[in-house]
Amino acid sequence: MPRPFSKVLIANRGEIALRVHRACQEMGIRTVAVHSTADASAMHVRLADESVCIGPPPARESYLNVAAILSAATITGAEAIHPGYGFLSENARFAEMVEAHGLTFIGPTAEHIRMMGDKIAAKDAMRRLGVPLVPGSLGALESLEEARAVAEQVKYPVLIKAAAGGGGRGMKVARHEDELEEAWRVARTEAKAAFGDDSVYLEKYLDRPRHIELQVLADTHGNVVHFGERDCSLQRRHQKLVEEAGSPVLSAAERDALGAQVTQALRQLGYRNAGTLEFLWQDGQFAFIEMNTRLQVEHPVTEMVCGVDLVREQIRIAGGEALGYGQEDVRFSGHAIECRITAEDPESFAPSPGRVSTYHAPGGLGVRVDSALYSGYSVPPHYDSLVAKLVVHAPTREGAIARARRALDEMVVDGIRTTLPLHRRIMDDPEFQSGDYTIHWLERFVSRAG
Amino acid sequence: MPRPFSKVLIANRGEIALRVHRACQEMGIRTVAVHSTADASAMHVRLADESVCIGPPPARESYLNVAAILSAATITGAEAIHPGYGFLSENARFAEMVEAHGLTFIGPTAEHIRMMGDKIAAKDAMRRLGVPLVPGSLGALESLEEARAVAEQVKYPVLIKAAAGGGGRGMKVARHEDELEEAWRVARTEAKAAFGDDSVYLEKYLDRPRHIELQVLADTHGNVVHFGERDCSLQRRHQKLVEEAGSPVLSAAERDALGAQVTQALRQLGYRNAGTLEFLWQDGQFAFIEMNTRLQVEHPVTEMVCGVDLVREQIRIAGGEALGYGQEDVRFSGHAIECRITAEDPESFAPSPGRVSTYHAPGGLGVRVDSALYSGYSVPPHYDSLVAKLVVHAPTREGAIARARRALDEMVVDGIRTTLPLHRRIMDDPEFQSGDYTIHWLERFVSRAG
Repeated sequence: MPRPFSKVLIANRGEIALRVHRACQEMGIRTVAVHSTADASAMHVRLADESVCIGPPPARESYLNVAAILSAATITGAEAIHPGYGFLSENARFAEMVEAHGLTFIGPTAEHIRMMGDKIAAKDAMRRLGVPLVPGSLGALESLEEARAVAEQVKYPVLIKAAAGGGGRGMKVARHEDELEEAWRVARTEAKAAFGDDSVYLEKYLDRPRHIELQVLADTHGNVVHFGERDCSLQRRHQKLVEEAGSPVLSAAERDALGAQVTQALRQLGYRNAGTLEFLWQDGQFAFIEMNTRLQVEHPVTEMVCGVDLVREQIRIAGGEALGYGQEDVRFSGHAIECRITAEDPESFAPSPGRVSTYHAPGGLGVRVDSALYSGYSVPPHYDSLVAKLVVHAPTREGAIARARRALDEMVVDGIRTTLPLHRRIMDDPEFQSGDYTIHWLERFVSRAG
Repeated sequence: MPRPFSKVLIANRGEIALRVHRACQEMGIRTVAVHSTADASAMHVRLADESVCIGPPPARESYLNVAAILSAATITGAEAIHPGYGFLSENARFAEMVEAHGLTFIGPTAEHIRMMGDKIAAKDAMRRLGVPLVPGSLGALESLEEARAVAEQVKYPVLIKAAAGGGGRGMKVARHEDELEEAWRVARTEAKAAFGDDSVYLEKYLDRPRHIELQVLADTHGNVVHFGERDCSLQRRHQKLVEEAGSPVLSAAERDALGAQVTQALRQLGYRNAGTLEFLWQDGQFAFIEMNTRLQVEHPVTEMVCGVDLVREQIRIAGGEALGYGQEDVRFSGHAIECRITAEDPESFAPSPGRVSTYHAPGGLGVRVDSALYSGYSVPPHYDSLVAKLVVHAPTREGAIARARRALDEMVVDGIRTTLPLHRRIMDDPEFQSGDYTIHWLERFVSRAG
């Protein structure tokens, strides 16, 4: 079995630190956990081969403390650092410093992290590389006539937006042709008033989009392979709550077409390691919104459907190994759903840290749980409230939903409040079951339920 | 989604009762648990929709009490009974009584249960149907010369066995041609002394066989499909401890060939529901030993590799549904290993019932746990000591072993002794890892380790 490193430091906590530890252990790689004083008895610390305390909470004193993390790596003789998600995972400076210390950063180059961290630069790059964006005028419009022409091309509804704008000001929707002149006039007036510049541009208004993203792996030998899409439309305040692979609305041909565009773009870019391109999708059209240059929380649904271990692949790639397979070897089998279970009140979403008196994970066929919980563990109040990811896999979407329902019924997290009951209600909902939902669906569902 | 029954009674306990409950729940079928007084707080009772106490331990007063189980089904309005494995699952009379009460027995016909329950009748049937048995003389030998001829045909070593025999008496091995006359003489003398009958027969002596079995499903419409083999050679006192799918020694072509023979035989037999044919295997030759007309403990390894839910299929078949797929639709993906974790001392194998203070199941990619344990549960002393099945799945056998090792490290069953450490040692062992073992390997490993 290949072992690209003999020791890896995991610069994270919670379920994702455990996730990375598991991949390392299965590869015969020793692990170093870092932790705050609040996490001394955390699962990722208990299971790692070695651990180093890097400071107190909050995160900036420990999990974001670059010097402490690099010291921990040096002291323990770690050869590489896996950043997980969040914290330092998209910090280009951290990636540079890791490499400057002679260690391997398990992720993309600092250059690519930086490029994709700048949302405008990212969009420009992707446009140049042929990845679809929201259709519209390429720059400011010269005249109402030009606006009419572009609107006709991209089809109504359209959005007139202040070129200098932001925060929703100077932004008007025209749902039909006869609303365009009014929208043009108002948007320009508001733009002038707000920004001292009345130039506006026009783009297609996506009134009921879905969030669909594509998982990619790229090695350092020029091989780029995608692992299909995840539908992450179930969001509350831009936080994903439920994710699926594949998307209920995408055909295999549409997936293949998007995959071909994206992998070609990343090949041209010279991208390496894992990455996810996020899109809005409506009426068969994709519009790139951003790229995440790291592992994502919802990566397990892809793993279940493709039979791939994405963290293992990240580590192999960072070690300089070639993928060893091509796009034609990637198979999609069945349907997977992830429920993000957080330590929050399922109605008010108020954080609910504290001692977990009993933790019992569901089991059986097609059920995977990624969680750092255990009976007697105290969820600290300092960090993200995600405490468990329940991932189910079945031959069909209907079967996956049925499996999620029964697994949620088996799962016990006593002592704190969690969103388990909310997930059970979502899985029971006929609209969710129909697959016909947009990124606005969950907000409405939650307010209806509450 | 098809729902062949609206309510099913599960005539079993422990992890297999839970297994059947899970399949029912995912199919939208309500479940009735039956339980002894010792199992009032068991997981299968806690999760079932309804439950009925059917008597005290031992099993003959409750789980084997046919009248009590049939009453429970009648009272609760269950339409079908799933027997699990063990207890009444291979009791032809029970199957008949279930049907006589107007209920559906989720399993084969009583006739086939009875046929396969009689080991000699089963072998005769399989020989007629073209399934390979241990090669040898078809009946008693007339002379030493005939013995020589048959021995030459099946090749040494051979076994001379008393036709009337049993218990190892009148049984002699001839490893070479020059040992045959002596073996012939001694076996006949012993046979005469022990059974009053000196007739003997000869068969090939398998000195280092593996136990390889084939999983089959057959519907009531004449469709018979196999799901490949399981290698269950790791046994102690005829109890399987570790099972794999597929077998480390079998090629896809060998699997296909055996599968074709077996499915053709069962089609001719008119068999229905799930069944497993067990074979000894040595030097590329299969020899049928028996057929189990029920779900087997180790069925999950097949489910992991084929992506099939065998219990769901059993229920669908019992409801009269056609499989809806053919042999060409069955795909084998990766490798799966099951560790049977029992409540026993890992060295002496003394039973270790009692209160489980902490139960913590391992999680993450490719890990499945089938267990009725929970923190605070008391393992009763009355029943089989199996308390958890840890099943891992990975693209390769090497990966599956690595995954089993890390999952075993994560798993916690405190308060009682279990065979967890023994499984960890087996997974660490280079001989096991090589895949080169026979049905005698584990006995030697255990005595070495102890």
